[in-house]
Amino acid sequence: MSLQRPSGRRADQLRPISFTPDIAPHAKGSVLVSFGQTRVICAATVEEDVPRWMKMQKVGGGWVTAEYSMLPYSTLDRKARDISRGRLDGRSSEIQRLIGRALRAVVDLKKLGSRTIWVDCDVLQADGGTRTASITGGCVALAIALNRLMGEGKLRDFPLQQLVGAISTGVYEGEAVLDLDYPEDKAATVDFNVVMTEKLEFVEVQGSGEEAVFTGAQMGSMLDLATQGISELFTLQKAAILEADRPDGPALADLAAAFSK
Amino acid sequence: MSLQRPSGRRADQLRPISFTPDIAPHAKGSVLVSFGQTRVICAATVEEDVPRWMKMQKVGGGWVTAEYSMLPYSTLDRKARDISRGRLDGRSSEIQRLIGRALRAVVDLKKLGSRTIWVDCDVLQADGGTRTASITGGCVALAIALNRLMGEGKLRDFPLQQLVGAISTGVYEGEAVLDLDYPEDKAATVDFNVVMTEKLEFVEVQGSGEEAVFTGAQMGSMLDLATQGISELFTLQKAAILEADRPDGPALADLAAAFSK
Amino acid sequence: MSLQRPSGRRADQLRPISFTPDIAPHAKGSVLVSFGQTRVICAATVEEDVPRWMKMQKVGGGWVTAEYSMLPYSTLDRKARDISRGRLDGRSSEIQRLIGRALRAVVDLKKLGSRTIWVDCDVLQADGGTRTASITGGCVALAIALNRLMGEGKLRDFPLQQLVGAISTGVYEGEAVLDLDYPEDKAATVDFNVVMTEKLEFVEVQGSGEEAVFTGAQMGSMLDLATQGISELFTLQKAAILEADRPDGPALADLAAAFSK
Amino acid sequence: MSLQRPSGRRADQLRPISFTPDIAPHAKGSVLVSFGQTRVICAATVEEDVPRWMKMQKVGGGWVTAEYSMLPYSTLDRKARDISRGRLDGRSSEIQRLIGRALRAVVDLKKLGSRTIWVDCDVLQADGGTRTASITGGCVALAIALNRLMGEGKLRDFPLQQLVGAISTGVYEGEAVLDLDYPEDKAATVDFNVVMTEKLEFVEVQGSGEEAVFTGAQMGSMLDLATQGISELFTLQKAAILEADRPDGPALADLAAAFSK
Amino acid sequence: MSLQRPSGRRADQLRPISFTPDIAPHAKGSVLVSFGQTRVICAATVEEDVPRWMKMQKVGGGWVTAEYSMLPYSTLDRKARDISRGRLDGRSSEIQRLIGRALRAVVDLKKLGSRTIWVDCDVLQADGGTRTASITGGCVALAIALNRLMGEGKLRDFPLQQLVGAISTGVYEGEAVLDLDYPEDKAATVDFNVVMTEKLEFVEVQGSGEEAVFTGAQMGSMLDLATQGISELFTLQKAAILEADRPDGPALADLAAAFSK
Amino acid sequence: MSLQRPSGRRADQLRPISFTPDIAPHAKGSVLVSFGQTRVICAATVEEDVPRWMKMQKVGGGWVTAEYSMLPYSTLDRKARDISRGRLDGRSSEIQRLIGRALRAVVDLKKLGSRTIWVDCDVLQADGGTRTASITGGCVALAIALNRLMGEGKLRDFPLQQLVGAISTGVYEGEAVLDLDYPEDKAATVDFNVVMTEKLEFVEVQGSGEEAVFTGAQMGSMLDLATQGISELFTLQKAAILEADRPDGPALADLAAAFSK
Repeated sequence: MSLQRPSGRRADQLRPISFTPDIAPHAKGSVLVSFGQTRVICAATVEEDVPRWMKMQKVGGGWVTAEYSMLPYSTLDRKARDISRGRLDGRSSEIQRLIGRALRAVVDLKKLGSRTIWVDCDVLQADGGTRTASITGGCVALAIALNRLMGEGKLRDFPLQQLVGAISTGVYEGEAVLDLDYPEDKAATVDFNVVMTEKLEFVEVQGSGEEAVFTGAQMGSMLDLATQGISELFTLQKAAILEADRPDGPALADLAAAFSK
Repeated sequence: MSLQRPSGRRADQLRPISFTPDIAPHAKGSVLVSFGQTRVICAATVEEDVPRWMKMQKVGGGWVTAEYSMLPYSTLDRKARDISRGRLDGRSSEIQRLIGRALRAVVDLKKLGSRTIWVDCDVLQADGGTRTASITGGCVALAIALNRLMGEGKLRDFPLQQLVGAISTGVYEGEAVLDLDYPEDKAATVDFNVVMTEKLEFVEVQGSGEEAVFTGAQMGSMLDLATQGISELFTLQKAAILEADRPDGPALADLAAAFSK
Repeated sequence: MSLQRPSGRRADQLRPISFTPDIAPHAKGSVLVSFGQTRVICAATVEEDVPRWMKMQKVGGGWVTAEYSMLPYSTLDRKARDISRGRLDGRSSEIQRLIGRALRAVVDLKKLGSRTIWVDCDVLQADGGTRTASITGGCVALAIALNRLMGEGKLRDFPLQQLVGAISTGVYEGEAVLDLDYPEDKAATVDFNVVMTEKLEFVEVQGSGEEAVFTGAQMGSMLDLATQGISELFTLQKAAILEADRPDGPALADLAAAFSK
Repeated sequence: MSLQRPSGRRADQLRPISFTPDIAPHAKGSVLVSFGQTRVICAATVEEDVPRWMKMQKVGGGWVTAEYSMLPYSTLDRKARDISRGRLDGRSSEIQRLIGRALRAVVDLKKLGSRTIWVDCDVLQADGGTRTASITGGCVALAIALNRLMGEGKLRDFPLQQLVGAISTGVYEGEAVLDLDYPEDKAATVDFNVVMTEKLEFVEVQGSGEEAVFTGAQMGSMLDLATQGISELFTLQKAAILEADRPDGPALADLAAAFSK
Repeated sequence: MSLQRPSGRRADQLRPISFTPDIAPHAKGSVLVSFGQTRVICAATVEEDVPRWMKMQKVGGGWVTAEYSMLPYSTLDRKARDISRGRLDGRSSEIQRLIGRALRAVVDLKKLGSRTIWVDCDVLQADGGTRTASITGGCVALAIALNRLMGEGKLRDFPLQQLVGAISTGVYEGEAVLDLDYPEDKAATVDFNVVMTEKLEFVEVQGSGEEAVFTGAQMGSMLDLATQGISELFTLQKAAILEADRPDGPALADLAAAFSK
Repeated sequence: MSLQRPSGRRADQLRPISFTPDIAPHAKGSVLVSFGQTRVICAATVEEDVPRWMKMQKVGGGWVTAEYSMLPYSTLDRKARDISRGRLDGRSSEIQRLIGRALRAVVDLKKLGSRTIWVDCDVLQADGGTRTASITGGCVALAIALNRLMGEGKLRDFPLQQLVGAISTGVYEGEAVLDLDYPEDKAATVDFNVVMTEKLEFVEVQGSGEEAVFTGAQMGSMLDLATQGISELFTLQKAAILEADRPDGPALADLAAAFSK
């Protein structure tokens, strides 16, 4: 007889995933991404300048960077703002570095021109998997923004080489399960996050036992689940990007072509 | 012939105002408030403790405090996060103090019990009037939260004595106008914010010439416009509070009665 | 029978006001201003540079900015220094922004040339009305400094267009009263600060009920008292500015002429 | 013909590894660990108290936490101290969280009693792999400290359940290689760190493509290399722990027994 | 023929020294001290509590601590506030530690009771010797405060055992000179500060060559000058303390007796 | 009969002093200095730039600056890192300013060229006299670094004019003693640090009674002891500098000549 997850889902079943584009219209691209009850505002804004270190080291092209924050009311107990505590907490710093690396892995920075894309991820509601939702939604916001920069004639070549997506897996009662919500995450013994590209190559894997350990076989199962789950995400991401298309962007066909390269 | 406002509105006309309750379900009460293109997430969370100074000074009852922040992508040019600059900027500090004072003016803190209500206001899109939208929406979030605390049996008497609302006015081409959007605000010579209660008494007036001055007559016109505009807000606030009602809250009739006291 | 104020003053009576020029001789202009027991050191210093944002935005002319701080021994209980707590407190930040706006409202920044005038206000003794004393004394320090810059041939036209003054009013036992000291301020239900120019136009009004509200009629009375009180301040400010005149400044007649423009 | 690594080592060859115990005699346990040219001071100190959150949440037992820092002269270009920049950099924060998690995975916190073990890792010379050297050396410092606490009669049961070790792997010219030094790390396309216990179970895996991606097959090879490399580390760690034994610690036989449990 | 000092003073001549008591009436004791053009506000305030470390280490008695700051307009070029730069500068930190040590050397902390005396020293005008003026004036403010605590019956025994004073010396054109003003300090090769008690014993000597060195013979001359100069200061300090006496303090005769013990 | 020091040493006896060169090979010059149980890592690194203030004030030549820090495990009770407390503690700030002044007193900054030498002093074990060990070891690290810059042809003239050394003295049971360890320092009534050059001229003297005072006679004895002790240090410093010599530095004879100039 099979495993009973707290959420009632099958071991390989994602939560309902949705994307609401243009949640923050002042951003060049934005989306409200939901992984079940986890909801994150992802917004890509464009700065016509590059970081100081790129100028000093005379690195050409552009830059993509991410910032991650949990809104105070996103958690069950109110989380004090970073500024009240005087510093960014270690976990947020770690997550925003991960998001930035994941997005840069699929962007050809040379094609960006001398500009920075900021991808902000603000968690509106936290129910497990905020970092994977942020990467997945951040890629959608970034794609929309780049698409519009193309439409405005500011980019010659589309800098996004392929999509990137991320999902969490874990071990619950000895078995690998996909896309854990908060109660499942608390009950699981392993926290394993996977970031992959459309070509199903790995960008990042982060597995942590936290007070526990895991075997090679368990790791194999988790990687399989993740590969399948992320494949599903790519379909949803593409639909969201196309939905956000605008008259001033490239024709749908061109965009679809860009992604199929 | 009459004044042509940049927005095309009449001098005494509010922007479209709307409230979307429960935008942040982990908060006890929350609302997305829109004053035209200005959109603010207002969320009231409950902490079962009071600030340290209240304990030390042995002040009884509870406390209501507010925090205000502009999300980085709320402005046309990305605004760096407070934590990146290492400190809360002066303007945000000033606004959150104002929101807190406005809300406390209509709450009977003794009736709150020994708890703190945090009212967070995060600006999703800024197009003028973010502080008045925050007060107006913050009051709705607070009312919803208090209503639910009543429903949970945690409060004996409803601590909210009446509603509080706020609106901006200004002087555009010599004439007083209501509820300025960002382009109007830039063009106006006076920035005048008014906070009032349902009994149409003043809680706070803040008028600033910024590089200009204004006469007593102009102030009179602005106060009249504000009084009328805030009256309209109260109707909309009440509808939003009632809409958010839940099975575990008091019956609609009770709530309506509470407000009519 | 008439109102008994705690201070024994009439409702429309200022505290004794005095100005001691050149309290800080290294500043270009300085004054110790007293509003009764409230004493503030106001000093204007000149920096031959403009803020970074002015250079980046290519704004011409100069700048006037203010900083406000309470010395630790100015209050009945010692107030910890900002640097001990690691940040400027919200109230000080708010007050120094107000002082800066008030002074800039009467200065023609173009005539300043490419320099910044810093107006520092350090409270030596706090007994109510420190912000209004700071604006009133800050304007005197600024005028003295500008006068001396004129005398040194560094300015072609006198940048101060008119004086600016400020006073507090409030509601005590239901009646409007002028220039509240600390005990009166604690007992009053409204805190209303008014900033005006010599032409009796408003620069700034800030009225706050703090745990209370006020009517339109009360506001009217407070504005009348403030107008009268600030008129008295202008006479005293001018005398202080003239008293500080020096051989290396313009002749007294020229200065008087500058103010009568 | 086989791969030529920049270092001249075989793909599966560790750098020379050494441990110098008691480098910092005021610590309860300390070691200078060298992975080739990478040298890290690891010191375990004991505080007879637990973190505030444990008291508030009434969690029993003790705590193990880590701090990681690069000494300014550890890098080829001097690295400014955290305190000069005003904040801990994101990378250091991420690494010290990893070290703490890795150590806690092999400690039975209940057996620690109500005390905190701080494991400080200060990099004296950085040549790649500082985080894996820190975990490996940190475990040795911790074991020595716990051993001495046993000897002092402060612990009833030995809280260290097994050893933990860590090593880096990567992909160089398409092939998996073990324990990369700095020049190899710069030339590699994947940075993959593995933390394992003596039972060869995983505690943590962290693989990052940084501007690149990797396949499942490459991951498999890296995991194999890591498993073999960490096995070698355990032998060296045990020798170092036994070498540091002192008259006031348990007899060697007892310690050996403790580890064989 | 003898040395020509820039100031025209004899090598062993102090600047005009004066004390203006009660410059900050909210402090328990305060004085404006002038060493020539150097002017420092010294204020002693009383907190009915002791520092946390004293409670934790269960040290009985009270504490005396000092804070030193230069007001922004005290220098010829405006000095940015500590809070603007985000941290106390090293020089201020060093000086306030010196002032605290100097004052504690002459106070019997047991006799203070369980309270802290804060001695704040804010430099109004800096013209050399601000640290020695701060110690000398700080002792006067402290004595006045303690005298008043005696008068209020809060102290049984007078905790100030004797006075402490401080003066600077230096080497100008090869010769030792006393009490250097700023131009002399810039021209001198050695900066030597001496703190002594009424019994002419040393509390602190701090001599620094700053880009230069000095001989034992020069040190001897400087110590002789300092001893003589501080002796003169004691006479002036006593007069200032007695002048500040109040009806609610001990009779003059008692105070004089306290100092002669 | 003679004095019994806690350490069993004669009043004029140094602790065993040793220098281990090249403890931090990435630094241009480094040394682990031991004064008995006190051990400090001193490292000199070279930055091919000068501080901003030198550029702005158009000061030619180079700069030497020092940073001092106690590693958390250097003390008997773990000392929290500066970054955890958010600021450099006052004592460290004071000591690093002293080290910088001491080193600059013997360096001809013009001969350094437009570069900065950072001398970092990290205390590995603290047992009294960390500041004097830092100056003494810092000078050795600096000399080695300068020697190597000479060898690389980056300097024309050797900028180090003579060596600088430092030692502590104090008064124990009424008698002057040399080079106090921690238990002696706790028991002593005076803390007296002396910095001298090879020509036996003073660079800095810092004597503090801390809760006590001292006489002129005692100061004389302490200065005599210090002079003798520092003379011994110079011999040891020279040996360490020569030992660190490298093929790419000047020939031993040249270096010896440089020091004998």
